[in-house]
Amino acid sequence: MHLSDLETPALLLDEARMERNITRMRSHLAALGVDFRPHVKTSKSIDVARRMMTRPTGPITVSTLKEAEYFLAHGVTDILYAVGIAPGKLEHVVALRRKGARLTVILDSVEAAQAVARASQAAGDAVSALIEIDSDGHRSGVQPGDPLLIDIARALESGGGELAGVMTHAGSSYNCRSVAAIRGMAEQERDAAVSCARRLREAGFAAPVVSVGSTPTATYARDLTGVTEVRTGVFVFFDLFMAGLGVCSLDDLALTVLTTVIGHQRDKGWAIVDAGWMAMSRDRGTAKQAVDQGYGLVCNLDGQVIPEVIMVDANQEHGIVAHRSGNPSQLPALPVGTLLRVLPNHACATGAQHDRYHVVGADGAVSAVWPRFSGW
Amino acid sequence: MHLSDLETPALLLDEARMERNITRMRSHLAALGVDFRPHVKTSKSIDVARRMMTRPTGPITVSTLKEAEYFLAHGVTDILYAVGIAPGKLEHVVALRRKGARLTVILDSVEAAQAVARASQAAGDAVSALIEIDSDGHRSGVQPGDPLLIDIARALESGGGELAGVMTHAGSSYNCRSVAAIRGMAEQERDAAVSCARRLREAGFAAPVVSVGSTPTATYARDLTGVTEVRTGVFVFFDLFMAGLGVCSLDDLALTVLTTVIGHQRDKGWAIVDAGWMAMSRDRGTAKQAVDQGYGLVCNLDGQVIPEVIMVDANQEHGIVAHRSGNPSQLPALPVGTLLRVLPNHACATGAQHDRYHVVGADGAVSAVWPRFSGW
Repeated sequence: MHLSDLETPALLLDEARMERNITRMRSHLAALGVDFRPHVKTSKSIDVARRMMTRPTGPITVSTLKEAEYFLAHGVTDILYAVGIAPGKLEHVVALRRKGARLTVILDSVEAAQAVARASQAAGDAVSALIEIDSDGHRSGVQPGDPLLIDIARALESGGGELAGVMTHAGSSYNCRSVAAIRGMAEQERDAAVSCARRLREAGFAAPVVSVGSTPTATYARDLTGVTEVRTGVFVFFDLFMAGLGVCSLDDLALTVLTTVIGHQRDKGWAIVDAGWMAMSRDRGTAKQAVDQGYGLVCNLDGQVIPEVIMVDANQEHGIVAHRSGNPSQLPALPVGTLLRVLPNHACATGAQHDRYHVVGADGAVSAVWPRFSGW
Repeated sequence: MHLSDLETPALLLDEARMERNITRMRSHLAALGVDFRPHVKTSKSIDVARRMMTRPTGPITVSTLKEAEYFLAHGVTDILYAVGIAPGKLEHVVALRRKGARLTVILDSVEAAQAVARASQAAGDAVSALIEIDSDGHRSGVQPGDPLLIDIARALESGGGELAGVMTHAGSSYNCRSVAAIRGMAEQERDAAVSCARRLREAGFAAPVVSVGSTPTATYARDLTGVTEVRTGVFVFFDLFMAGLGVCSLDDLALTVLTTVIGHQRDKGWAIVDAGWMAMSRDRGTAKQAVDQGYGLVCNLDGQVIPEVIMVDANQEHGIVAHRSGNPSQLPALPVGTLLRVLPNHACATGAQHDRYHVVGADGAVSAVWPRFSGW
């Protein structure tokens, strides 16, 4: 099947680029001596996950229990659910563990630790949990110096849960402005997690797991002493945001949205295409970067960037493609029916708008269709 | 089933509010003497569409051929596909018409008209098309005074297609700042469509259909002389953007996302919840309005707004809830496990992130689960 046989919009996956991204990350982390626990929230696809995982049973990281269900059904058992556990989900967690998942949850409060302990006692199954550390002030987690850390550990273990260790995610690395800053953030992330694990061990807890990771910090970390595993997700496809951050080059971007030109406003220098924000997502992550890519950077059917042509605006099923200058004479002709490919701002967000990947091989033809899922 | 039995995040639909929104719009359009062709792209649900449609067979408006497929399979035959037709989709259009759909396409170029004419000849089926008019400089369509209008009509009919009339969508009404401005836009939308239909008729084309609509203009139009039908979609659920525009009140908003508090950063006045942008969508439509609602306005489990509490930021599966002032003492306690409901910026975008509606009845319990679909 050729790209021109697809009904647009359609999500395309360049397999060679994806494989290269995976190989690079795996080699890098192996050289640093840490385990790799890829985050599957970006792809939500067993076909992609199988290429990322070091073993068919995992480890992986998930962002929803639906992901845990799906990957368990496909034979993946070593699963970290890396969003703070809601007490109401613990029955589901226990059920997944009964079905064979070595499922670990995360938490950052005594209340949640008590809920895990209660669920463990009720189930006769010591549910495994990591304490989340706030290494960068970005979102959730216990502050590295906070005595709360030990209170949570006690509430968890004395109540019947299992303290597996600590985890952190330096999401602030997305706001770094240089490689040096990302390297600094990687060290801050490592240090926060390792120092908290040390405090737990000094207090008598085993806390064997020290889990860190974000795509920028994982890419640029040079020393992960004391860390046992790294989680990273978006690296598998990369996107314009990561390219703008300097974490990858445009040639690493594995996802594009195939779209068709359906009309023009020639006075304005617009080509109208049939991919809008429903196909691209509403993610405008590059808006705050040095180069704002609109809703995406436009390529020809071969995947070559058309210089300075971006999707400047989008409605639900319409995209407006124009030259960055706004000069109508700068936009190529692009007759009605022309097929284009649009590189997305954010692979996780754009992927989530689609239910399948059309895998593009080296010959430019569609070599496979891989399903993906969404929702909860 | 009670709301507390649902795993979060989950999409809730307040049935009474939806019914009230539908009744109001239908009465208003009936009083104006025009047909109602509701847009089903907002709901993508036959259960919702059945409540909006005037007859079980339609008419409806769709934004994708997947919607056309789905609604045809549920007995809806009178369908307008209101995105400029891509030549590559005409085989699919013809196949849907063979299966019984009275499917009409839209176009705004001689090239597309020729493609429709060729497909009509090849299929032995005069495919019906409306010419899209650009009534507001917003997106697609022929400018009202442009002689191109007649060229398109000729290319279509002389080649074997069927010219059904004209359509326009005054999307600029979303940028109006007052009811008076929306009323002005409604008249501009009407006038552009009616005057183009008149020009076509003067040139010898029948052009029976004059189709207009957007939720703001449809809500405030006072005279639709010459218009035959009105399309509108988001009115069925409404959202914070429409409330900010003055098109509805907060009490009209029928969709909320149910979420659970999973942690806090008390020093910052943050409650962390398990609905992020994946559940809310990345839509930040209110960012440019007088009141920026962040990723959504937070309500308690009964659906009552918690004054000045919004989702100030979101990651993929995490939302950060805070008082608008940023003052930590202003945020209610919201212990871990608390269930909240979040009103979305944009019903179309938030709905698209979910695969089902949990319908909430007058007693606050879940009375039904209605499936919805996404993709192409």
